[in-house]
Amino acid sequence: MVVTLNGNIDEKSFQKIIKWIESHNVKIKTVESDRHTVMVLTGDTALIDETVLSSFDGVLNAFHLSENCTATSREYSPCDTEIELSPFGEKVTVGKGLCIIAGPCSVESEEQISEIAKKVKAAGASVLRGGAFKPRTSPYSFQGLREEGIKYLERARAEAKIPVVSEIMDIRHIELFENIDILQVGARNMQNYELLKELGKIRKPILLKRAPSASIDEFLMSAEYIMCGGNENVILCERGICSFEKETRNTLDLAAVALLKMRTHLPVIVDPSHATGIAGIVEPMSLAAVAAGADGVMIEVHSRPQDALCDGKQSITPHTLEKIVKKASNVKKASECQ
Amino acid sequence: MVVTLNGNIDEKSFQKIIKWIESHNVKIKTVESDRHTVMVLTGDTALIDETVLSSFDGVLNAFHLSENCTATSREYSPCDTEIELSPFGEKVTVGKGLCIIAGPCSVESEEQISEIAKKVKAAGASVLRGGAFKPRTSPYSFQGLREEGIKYLERARAEAKIPVVSEIMDIRHIELFENIDILQVGARNMQNYELLKELGKIRKPILLKRAPSASIDEFLMSAEYIMCGGNENVILCERGICSFEKETRNTLDLAAVALLKMRTHLPVIVDPSHATGIAGIVEPMSLAAVAAGADGVMIEVHSRPQDALCDGKQSITPHTLEKIVKKASNVKKASECQ
Amino acid sequence: MVVTLNGNIDEKSFQKIIKWIESHNVKIKTVESDRHTVMVLTGDTALIDETVLSSFDGVLNAFHLSENCTATSREYSPCDTEIELSPFGEKVTVGKGLCIIAGPCSVESEEQISEIAKKVKAAGASVLRGGAFKPRTSPYSFQGLREEGIKYLERARAEAKIPVVSEIMDIRHIELFENIDILQVGARNMQNYELLKELGKIRKPILLKRAPSASIDEFLMSAEYIMCGGNENVILCERGICSFEKETRNTLDLAAVALLKMRTHLPVIVDPSHATGIAGIVEPMSLAAVAAGADGVMIEVHSRPQDALCDGKQSITPHTLEKIVKKASNVKKASECQ
Amino acid sequence: MVVTLNGNIDEKSFQKIIKWIESHNVKIKTVESDRHTVMVLTGDTALIDETVLSSFDGVLNAFHLSENCTATSREYSPCDTEIELSPFGEKVTVGKGLCIIAGPCSVESEEQISEIAKKVKAAGASVLRGGAFKPRTSPYSFQGLREEGIKYLERARAEAKIPVVSEIMDIRHIELFENIDILQVGARNMQNYELLKELGKIRKPILLKRAPSASIDEFLMSAEYIMCGGNENVILCERGICSFEKETRNTLDLAAVALLKMRTHLPVIVDPSHATGIAGIVEPMSLAAVAAGADGVMIEVHSRPQDALCDGKQSITPHTLEKIVKKASNVKKASECQ
Repeated sequence: MVVTLNGNIDEKSFQKIIKWIESHNVKIKTVESDRHTVMVLTGDTALIDETVLSSFDGVLNAFHLSENCTATSREYSPCDTEIELSPFGEKVTVGKGLCIIAGPCSVESEEQISEIAKKVKAAGASVLRGGAFKPRTSPYSFQGLREEGIKYLERARAEAKIPVVSEIMDIRHIELFENIDILQVGARNMQNYELLKELGKIRKPILLKRAPSASIDEFLMSAEYIMCGGNENVILCERGICSFEKETRNTLDLAAVALLKMRTHLPVIVDPSHATGIAGIVEPMSLAAVAAGADGVMIEVHSRPQDALCDGKQSITPHTLEKIVKKASNVKKASECQ
Repeated sequence: MVVTLNGNIDEKSFQKIIKWIESHNVKIKTVESDRHTVMVLTGDTALIDETVLSSFDGVLNAFHLSENCTATSREYSPCDTEIELSPFGEKVTVGKGLCIIAGPCSVESEEQISEIAKKVKAAGASVLRGGAFKPRTSPYSFQGLREEGIKYLERARAEAKIPVVSEIMDIRHIELFENIDILQVGARNMQNYELLKELGKIRKPILLKRAPSASIDEFLMSAEYIMCGGNENVILCERGICSFEKETRNTLDLAAVALLKMRTHLPVIVDPSHATGIAGIVEPMSLAAVAAGADGVMIEVHSRPQDALCDGKQSITPHTLEKIVKKASNVKKASECQ
Repeated sequence: MVVTLNGNIDEKSFQKIIKWIESHNVKIKTVESDRHTVMVLTGDTALIDETVLSSFDGVLNAFHLSENCTATSREYSPCDTEIELSPFGEKVTVGKGLCIIAGPCSVESEEQISEIAKKVKAAGASVLRGGAFKPRTSPYSFQGLREEGIKYLERARAEAKIPVVSEIMDIRHIELFENIDILQVGARNMQNYELLKELGKIRKPILLKRAPSASIDEFLMSAEYIMCGGNENVILCERGICSFEKETRNTLDLAAVALLKMRTHLPVIVDPSHATGIAGIVEPMSLAAVAAGADGVMIEVHSRPQDALCDGKQSITPHTLEKIVKKASNVKKASECQ
Repeated sequence: MVVTLNGNIDEKSFQKIIKWIESHNVKIKTVESDRHTVMVLTGDTALIDETVLSSFDGVLNAFHLSENCTATSREYSPCDTEIELSPFGEKVTVGKGLCIIAGPCSVESEEQISEIAKKVKAAGASVLRGGAFKPRTSPYSFQGLREEGIKYLERARAEAKIPVVSEIMDIRHIELFENIDILQVGARNMQNYELLKELGKIRKPILLKRAPSASIDEFLMSAEYIMCGGNENVILCERGICSFEKETRNTLDLAAVALLKMRTHLPVIVDPSHATGIAGIVEPMSLAAVAAGADGVMIEVHSRPQDALCDGKQSITPHTLEKIVKKASNVKKASECQ
């Protein structure tokens, strides 16, 4: 840890700082600069709060020299984490190759989800998405079929033999999701820490969406909440951040994908449908995500977008999905070959 | 509802739209413009989803003519909502006059919170704040004293005879908060809808903080989640939004305060401490909040900011609070007199 | 144009609006809705200012039905604009295939720019970039070699036989740029309208960078300033927008690239170097840009990044450029094949 | 300057860094930490570029210990700068007391500006604003009366005996502004450095508006461009920054006002009209600005807002201005008294 003091600090302030630091049981080495005094602290500095130290009179700044080696970091696990699912024999891996997750925003009926499950599988998707519990901005909007929706998802999953991902919003629902392969934490709940802690106690893969106002560090720290509970099966999902630009619902931050792949061993996928809200650019944004290094994409697909109970404007058809899967696969090869 | 069609729409597309609209049991009146056809729909158009209708071929745009009259709106209740608390006889009102909420970020010990409770009351605060359950970005940071913290808060409250507000993060904790006067929903949980729904079932005042990426509409809709459950005692709290500017932790959006006072009957308060993260500008930002029309401010106060276990950098002393209370009261008078 | 009135508008306000509208020489057709009156205006409505009309008592909203057919729009020119340069015989096209622009942030010496010119050409670049006039945030930072830098650029261009792009900051410098093939307008000058108007009077290609706070509409309108003066050779360049995320210098908005390709016939390129400020992610961001539909990329290359007088942190070496050019070309093919 | 090296840096990389640093003629003192080496550089470190040094292998970070003492800083001039104008005998001071600048967005006709000049003066304004050269997003919008507008402004100024401020967009126009008391640099030109340098050569007060994407540092650096040319008469104007929130045109950043007053001796004013774009909240935002410490406000006033050629929606009447002036003056007193 490095602490910089004003050169003209008075003796009393100086002694106060020294006393405070020493109460933390660390060693201090000091260097005089022209107008400043620089102290290097060694030992167990983790308990020293930078912001508190910075608030003492005479302290110019104070910062830790290295991040703690967190469970999400590449230092902790140099190899890429691969999350395997094979509820029906066939193996699906997230974190190796290209994983396509597709399906409707909401489960609307048993027929709807069963039909789409087969169609997205045929189009090349390896995981089915579908919301039963829907977080809607307005309490007067359709809130999902809830328990019933989960049942329909289970049947569609079994019929089409495809693993499913669905969003969980309430700690009390964990048991309901017994037959769901991947539990999604939505952007609005990314910092619902009590939920994250509970999900750290189970062993199912968790697909964690980035909140629109979360920095990369905050995003990783939310994954850390799950991992430090013991559940290391976390999939990160970039889905757009908030900015002044309103042509798209959010601003898809693909540089974050490239940075995450450098900093963490966890799989990173991208949701171009919610990020942009525009069906017409889901294809180029899916390809760009793959070219940026994403391990997969999660795309909203509806057999009849105009009849969707929510987010119809951003849904594509199974036919378009098929084209995207092919191109994305080619783009992945093109961007990886040496 | 108004729907605008391209003038050169083909007959098939046109009939498809008409059929879809008529399936909603509304009436259509049509006007031809030079290059467009404008349809005005009347009747119960609430069930027509604008985004779906906009996605039909040939539709230029579609929008509802009036917002639904929501529970938070001035149409629903033209008079300002006043929330009264008087657990100790003395009446405290939020939504009339100036309400000062003050206290430490976290409850750190029984002595700490008891001491501050008396000091902030003496300085002019009418509600004590103090976090027992702390939402921290990192799972490795101090998470609050939790159940124990609530007990200390209860004692400090009884001794100083001052109502308290504290943050609730988990549905399962509601009973623990029995003796807490106001339940706070933090910015990170503003869209934790399952929590909001539960808080709609009780009758305690809820202090709802705006998420840093929430629009004014989204903020009001979260209040609506609580209100449509039957709990109309909601206090809105602006605490900074996210922007590119990083000199302050967030960007305090005081225009939102002025707009909220126009659009809703609910009380609006401002938290300049978390919004800016800088103790040195808590005073001007508190005064600006009051001048902008806020019904109160919530300020972090610590007897010894440098010993605070979190957010020491943004805490002021009880002495500074006293000065702010006096000035804020004068600013309120100055900005209201005709 | 559509104007919606409150149903309970009083006669006086209504007559005032009608009179104001009629003074603009347009026709009015009226439809009564349940609680509103909708008026459709036809004729030359271009002169009616929506914001003025919206400010009349009783007007709920007012908007134009179609954008004017602007010079940048696909309606104006359905075919993609291709800008050709061939100062040395060999033809370089921007707007068809993949255009790689590369070179240092600043021209630092005659040797430096001559060396890099040859290296980037050998690596596959078709245009050389290099700043002679540098817009620097601080007046105390290196401001570029100015006139001298232009001379060095001219020599490097002639020796390596490669066209060059360089930034112009002052109307009075246009003559100095006589031998520069493409004039760049930097992000900070995107709304320096007097400069744009002057550049509309010449016929050289203009590379217009998006300001970090400019919406897509504002960006296109700045291109319109140049085009309506008669210069239709405009190249748009996305280089990151401002957002709360500070891991990267700006937030590269690749959805804007996809949207621009839908809305305008002008070529669109991407500058991943300035957008991110991180050399280590220039490759994935270049590939993502191409996958999103960009017509090219502009990349900062320096023979010895650590000796660069500015922006060394984001520069890559000619060797890395060569790898990117190959991969980008493959990604382009992969994303375009049917 | 402090440079932190990885403890496991290899000898070759280390020597490369040392050699590079020593080429800058500074002294190095070194301290070993547990896993790092910290070097403190003294002497004339101003020429060492942090970003270059950070890019060497083995360097963790590098930063300067103190900002250079810039002309805008409080270190340079501890007393508040007061800018005095008295073209007609009566003294107007910006930077002491409360300065009210008011007038229309654009000069529209001789009658219009003459009428408003008298009205705003009667309402309590001490400076008249009015745009002759208008920076408009679209080239097809009204661009101002230009030279003619300046003449009308001059006459209105002389008749009402009130100093005027008007925007300059082009270096070549400086002579035209001979009789204009304060030259305004608009937000779009805040980083038009060639213009700023020219304005540094004259001695007229310059009102510099903050660009919507400019940090406080960038804003001060633009002021520095003017000041280091010799013109110390700079007035800073906060007018809203860009954020995701679109209820208001921009997000008025009043914390920036409080921070600017701490960091610079220059006067700071606020433009609530352009910041919010909503006439109905100009009053609370003006009062909030004053409470936050602003030295004045600049408000758009139009005798008949609905006839304004631009920005009618945000203009208030002279009558409303009069009320604001009175309240603002009371708020200033309330927020300053001890």
